[in-house]
Amino acid sequence: MLEKVDLKKKISKIEYKGMVDGLRERLGELQRQARDLGIPVLVLFEGWDSAGKGTLINELILSLDPRGFNVYSIGEPDQEEAMRPYFWRFWNKTPQSGRMVILDRSWYTQMVAERVSKSASAQETEKKFYDSIAFERQLADDGTLIIKFFLHISEKEQRKRLEALEQEPAAAWRVTEADWEQHRQYNKYLPVVEEMLQQTDAESAPWTIVEAHDRRYATLKIIATVVQAIEKRLVLAEAGCPGIAVVGNPLSGLASAKIFTSSILAGADLTKTLKDVEYEKVMKLYQTRIRELEHIIYQKRVPVVIAFEGWDAAGKGGAIRRLTEHMDPRGYTVIPTSAPTDEEKAHHYLWRFWRNVPKAGHIAIFDRSWYGRVLVERVEGFCFESDWRRAYKEINEMEAQWVTFGVVLIKCWLHIDKEEQKKRFEERLANPGKQWKITGEDWRNREQWELYEAAVDEMFFRTSTSYAPWTLVEANSKEYARVKVIQSVIEAIERTI
Amino acid sequence: MLEKVDLKKKISKIEYKGMVDGLRERLGELQRQARDLGIPVLVLFEGWDSAGKGTLINELILSLDPRGFNVYSIGEPDQEEAMRPYFWRFWNKTPQSGRMVILDRSWYTQMVAERVSKSASAQETEKKFYDSIAFERQLADDGTLIIKFFLHISEKEQRKRLEALEQEPAAAWRVTEADWEQHRQYNKYLPVVEEMLQQTDAESAPWTIVEAHDRRYATLKIIATVVQAIEKRLVLAEAGCPGIAVVGNPLSGLASAKIFTSSILAGADLTKTLKDVEYEKVMKLYQTRIRELEHIIYQKRVPVVIAFEGWDAAGKGGAIRRLTEHMDPRGYTVIPTSAPTDEEKAHHYLWRFWRNVPKAGHIAIFDRSWYGRVLVERVEGFCFESDWRRAYKEINEMEAQWVTFGVVLIKCWLHIDKEEQKKRFEERLANPGKQWKITGEDWRNREQWELYEAAVDEMFFRTSTSYAPWTLVEANSKEYARVKVIQSVIEAIERTI
Repeated sequence: MLEKVDLKKKISKIEYKGMVDGLRERLGELQRQARDLGIPVLVLFEGWDSAGKGTLINELILSLDPRGFNVYSIGEPDQEEAMRPYFWRFWNKTPQSGRMVILDRSWYTQMVAERVSKSASAQETEKKFYDSIAFERQLADDGTLIIKFFLHISEKEQRKRLEALEQEPAAAWRVTEADWEQHRQYNKYLPVVEEMLQQTDAESAPWTIVEAHDRRYATLKIIATVVQAIEKRLVLAEAGCPGIAVVGNPLSGLASAKIFTSSILAGADLTKTLKDVEYEKVMKLYQTRIRELEHIIYQKRVPVVIAFEGWDAAGKGGAIRRLTEHMDPRGYTVIPTSAPTDEEKAHHYLWRFWRNVPKAGHIAIFDRSWYGRVLVERVEGFCFESDWRRAYKEINEMEAQWVTFGVVLIKCWLHIDKEEQKKRFEERLANPGKQWKITGEDWRNREQWELYEAAVDEMFFRTSTSYAPWTLVEANSKEYARVKVIQSVIEAIERTI
Repeated sequence: MLEKVDLKKKISKIEYKGMVDGLRERLGELQRQARDLGIPVLVLFEGWDSAGKGTLINELILSLDPRGFNVYSIGEPDQEEAMRPYFWRFWNKTPQSGRMVILDRSWYTQMVAERVSKSASAQETEKKFYDSIAFERQLADDGTLIIKFFLHISEKEQRKRLEALEQEPAAAWRVTEADWEQHRQYNKYLPVVEEMLQQTDAESAPWTIVEAHDRRYATLKIIATVVQAIEKRLVLAEAGCPGIAVVGNPLSGLASAKIFTSSILAGADLTKTLKDVEYEKVMKLYQTRIRELEHIIYQKRVPVVIAFEGWDAAGKGGAIRRLTEHMDPRGYTVIPTSAPTDEEKAHHYLWRFWRNVPKAGHIAIFDRSWYGRVLVERVEGFCFESDWRRAYKEINEMEAQWVTFGVVLIKCWLHIDKEEQKKRFEERLANPGKQWKITGEDWRNREQWELYEAAVDEMFFRTSTSYAPWTLVEANSKEYARVKVIQSVIEAIERTI
């Protein structure tokens, strides 16, 4: 996941000046309101060495009334602390009603380090992640607002920063051998950090990744995230009903929030294309191969699930057609997902997808899928916010069960840009045979492009798991997209059989 | 836990007749109300072979409108089912809005059998329990009311029933070799069943143990439990706020519910006593030993936590005094737990207990403890129902973390009966030096005896875990109680060092 984060994000000095004062002022107000309502707030910072935790914490507290918060720096446990159960020292630092606690590092630091150094087994680490979730859930259930930041920089950036620090006579002492050691192990840390983010991203205490190359960008994103989180928490507190969340657009609290979403989509290279000749040749090869694989998985009793999501007019239908063109129709089913029927509505929203899990040896192709809840239902307000927020975990649990059973699961997001979509809509309108494909709703959805973009990004972040990763299919070129889809399916099946 | 369940519970024919019609009628009404409000209800029956699942399910559905429910019998997965992920067939059977589904056996059956036969590892089984909790939580979050019964009979009763069945020509075919095989393995099943009950007892889907020796008793307990659960669910539905639970007495919905609590307390033999000579001798020995142990745990850096709970005037103070009389005061602290201070109230209710975790090598003795939330706070309505319901899990999580760290944890419930309490209250009143010990509050608490009893029983059931079991101390005889306390502490420490 982290490698997909766009670390090039930047904010110019002018933009920064235009926003920072308003945000700071708002944060100050919110701190007072949270205090008056007795809401405890816990903000923790994790991240790479040299990612700027200290600096960014300073930027955050600049906006705050110093009588209302404490900052704690978490190092190795001291002797007193080592003689108590692990969470003892963190319990001692939990904020009381109306106060804010900011942690520079947290309970996660040691867990990750122990895993990297192999002094803890995978199972022990998993247990510790579970304890962390329990700890956070207990506090959240009791009313604490928890905000978790992970400051992300690349290996290269880290080296640059360490070297720069070493050049500065006044700061050189801050660079220790341990820092360099961690740097050399960047790539060992990466998968453990990813696992930590994945395992401990909970509804009541989600992670926010901060692209920390640009200090201005990181500062604003942090302040904006805290502002948004407190705003939302206040709405709940005023509703007097913590179990129920608010309907509506999560970004509405902050008009400028858009620029802070971790746009994975923005990083997609949509210029990718294929020459016609190449396309024909490759497609033919792949279609033959997929038919062979279809028979192999039938014999080996491997179930396969392929889910397609993507923008309207991104070419899902065409991709599915090319994928199945030469397949044996007894081996696969295409399941179009539209608005739920009455019977489906009378069940859990995952019910209809569970029903359609293919038998071992068969392939189910979902044209749109269970991700509707965190996409269209979220953006259009067809469900409560608490419903779609809960859905990330529910989906991950469902997919984990499938994969554990042996399902080969492929999830493709077909990505086009707004311009390309417009072009395709207009082409459809101009073509009498295709006019039926385009409705007023498509144009309306298009107006919500930015909201969908944020929803897609969050979906990638929260549901691209090690056992069921997303495949981002660059689809401005239909040929390229079709080939990438079929190729991804082939690779996923070949990895398993 | 199960071995502590009082299986002698009975209801006479007359009592039964007096209650069953009213309960049935009420259940019928509630079924209609749940239907009108669109609430899905899932009732599952697990339990020993021959515990009477079939019969009792029939008794339950007698009260129901047959157009509103389905009964499914869960056997081995058929071929279609075996070709899908494990929960597929259970998802297919989830009730839709307003309907009730009753399951004769469930997802747990296979998990337990696989663990007993060792075809699944402990870790695999734990994973499956986790999947079960996730499944139930997903349904509950979506509004499904889940009621889980475990029908409990003793090994002896099971044998009796199997033999009786074999004698009946019309029924003999129903007794298979598999039944006898399971019977022979009763004691292998027991710990796995206990673990299942413990691991999967969730706030949103708690287990109810049904003492199933007496059919009338079991019938009434099942119907009463379903009645109560639906009543409570309707209150929530009407409040329009599923996240918030109702304050108040959980039994209030059903005046007769008292007789259905699984009274572990009732099984305590309060006639246990000790001769004075014996008491003096044993106490002296034990006090010497505990002092030795105190030094050993200091050297070995083992932390010890001892929690005392019990009825007013049960003798907690005296027991603590005898326990510590000859101990080195530098090695232990007694922490009296009274109403929380303002600072404590401003934190999570477990915060003050976490703060008082002893250092490794030291002993912390809690005179009353973190169990206050599920005892006095529950009964007196000092917290929301959702708070104390959540607390069982929170407490188990906390204790698990302590024990994993190496804490020796001993939890004693000092038990006296109502008569003995009255006697002691009166003695205190008659003794000018002890009058201060008795207040109007003590008499008021006494009036709530039955409610406290139910709370204690539920506490035992939900928090007597394999890693932190309760010790029930029969305390009508002060001498007996003091010796049992100190003995339990000695044994627990000796098991660890």
